[in-house]
Amino acid sequence: MVLTVDVGNTRIKAAVFEGSNVLENFIFEKKELEEKIKKILEKFQNCSDLIVSSVGSVEKQSFMNFENQLNVHFFSHEDIFPFHNKYATPKTLGIDRMILAAGATLKFPKQNRLVIDAGTCITYDFIDENDNYLGGAISPGLRLRYESLHNFTARLPLLNLEAPNSYIGNSTAQAIHSGVVNGFIYEIDGFIDEYRANFSNFIIILTGGDAEFLAKRLKNTIFANSNFLLESLNQTFQYKIDND
Amino acid sequence: MVLTVDVGNTRIKAAVFEGSNVLENFIFEKKELEEKIKKILEKFQNCSDLIVSSVGSVEKQSFMNFENQLNVHFFSHEDIFPFHNKYATPKTLGIDRMILAAGATLKFPKQNRLVIDAGTCITYDFIDENDNYLGGAISPGLRLRYESLHNFTARLPLLNLEAPNSYIGNSTAQAIHSGVVNGFIYEIDGFIDEYRANFSNFIIILTGGDAEFLAKRLKNTIFANSNFLLESLNQTFQYKIDND
Repeated sequence: MVLTVDVGNTRIKAAVFEGSNVLENFIFEKKELEEKIKKILEKFQNCSDLIVSSVGSVEKQSFMNFENQLNVHFFSHEDIFPFHNKYATPKTLGIDRMILAAGATLKFPKQNRLVIDAGTCITYDFIDENDNYLGGAISPGLRLRYESLHNFTARLPLLNLEAPNSYIGNSTAQAIHSGVVNGFIYEIDGFIDEYRANFSNFIIILTGGDAEFLAKRLKNTIFANSNFLLESLNQTFQYKIDND
Repeated sequence: MVLTVDVGNTRIKAAVFEGSNVLENFIFEKKELEEKIKKILEKFQNCSDLIVSSVGSVEKQSFMNFENQLNVHFFSHEDIFPFHNKYATPKTLGIDRMILAAGATLKFPKQNRLVIDAGTCITYDFIDENDNYLGGAISPGLRLRYESLHNFTARLPLLNLEAPNSYIGNSTAQAIHSGVVNGFIYEIDGFIDEYRANFSNFIIILTGGDAEFLAKRLKNTIFANSNFLLESLNQTFQYKIDND
C-alpha cells in the first residue's frame, strides 16, 4: 500500500493506492499537511511507502518526520524516468511535469502523448512515440486569470469560475467569464490543433483541478482524468522499484 | 487643437490632434502626469481642449488644475455616444471600451466591428452593423500572464515578452513564452473565428500596447492601429460637440 502526495502551487492532493487501485483521495491545505498525513496513516496502517511530488514551497522535513513509520521518497531529477529527456534545461523541469510525462509514457506506450494539466498553471507536456520528452508550454490557469484581472486593475471585480452564457459577454461579469473561460478553451484547443497538425497516432490526457469543468467544453476529444498525477506518481514509483 | 489623454491600468498615453491629424504622441508614468501635461501644453499653446478617458486610479484633480488654461473634459457614462448601448450593466462598462466602440462606430459605419485592445488586459468589444453595442470579453494581457506565472508559483521566473521559437517549448523559458504568447494568439484567433462564424460584413480593429507584436502573428487578417484609442477619443469628442 502506497500513499502518494502531490504538493502543488495552491493545495495538496493525496491518494492511497493498493497496487494500481485508488483506495481513497484527499485534498487539503499546506498548513494541515502533517496532521492530515498522520490521520491517513492511522487509517491505512499497511502503507509501506510515502511518495511525494512537490513544486510548492512546503518543507521537506514535514514529510521526513514520518520516516520512522514508513519509507519516504521525494521524487527528484536524480530518479530514473521511463522517457528520454530532451529538455534543454532538465534541472528546471518541474517534478510534476516529469511525473505526468512518466505516467503517460507508462500508461500509453508507443504513441504520441500530450498531457494537459489544468491547475494553478496550465502545463502542456509532449512525449513522442519514441519516448522522447520534447517539452511543452506553461500559462496561467483559470483561477490565476480571474485573480490577475482583479489584482492588476483598478475596477474589475474578483469572480469565481462560472461558465459564460455567450462568447459576447453582455455585462462586466459575463465579459470576464467569457474572456477567462472561452479564452482558456480557445487556447487549449489551439494547442491541440497545432499538435494534431504535426503528429498522428495521438492521445491527449487532460488532468488537474479544472479537468472536469473543461473536458465537456473542448472542441477536441480528450481523455480526462483528474487523478492522473497521483496515478502517475504511483506508477512511476513502481517503475523505479523495478528498474533501479 | 486637442490634447487627448488615455489613463490606462499601467501607463498614460497622450496625443495632440489638429483636426484628425496626430501632431505628436506621448507615453508616461502616472506620477509624471502633471509635469508632462504642463510641458505638452507649453509646446502646443493652441490646445483648446484636454480630453480624458480614465480607467486607472489617477486623481481627477490632477487634470482639473489645467482648467484655467483650457477646457477639460472627462468622458463619462453621461456623455452622448454614437451607438446603442445594449450592455446589461452600462454603468460598469469601462470608459475606454466605450471610447473604442464609439471610434469604431464612427470610423467604420454600417458594418459589424470587433475592437480588440491588447494592453494590461485584453478587451474584445462588438458593435453590430445597426450600431448596437453588444458587449464582449476581458482577459489578462500578455504582461499580466507573465507576471501571474511568477507571482503565484514558487519556482517560475519573471520573463519579458519574447516570441517563442516553437509551440513545443524545450526549456522553462521557452515553455513560458510558448504558453503565454501562443496561448494568447490562439485565444484571439479563437474569438475572431467565433465572431466570423456568426457575422459577416466584418471589420476587426486591433489596438493597444501589444498590437504591433500581435498583428503579424495572428492567423486572421486584422486592421492594426496602436493609436486607435486616442484617435477614437478625438473623434468621439468631435461627435459630442456636433451632437450635444
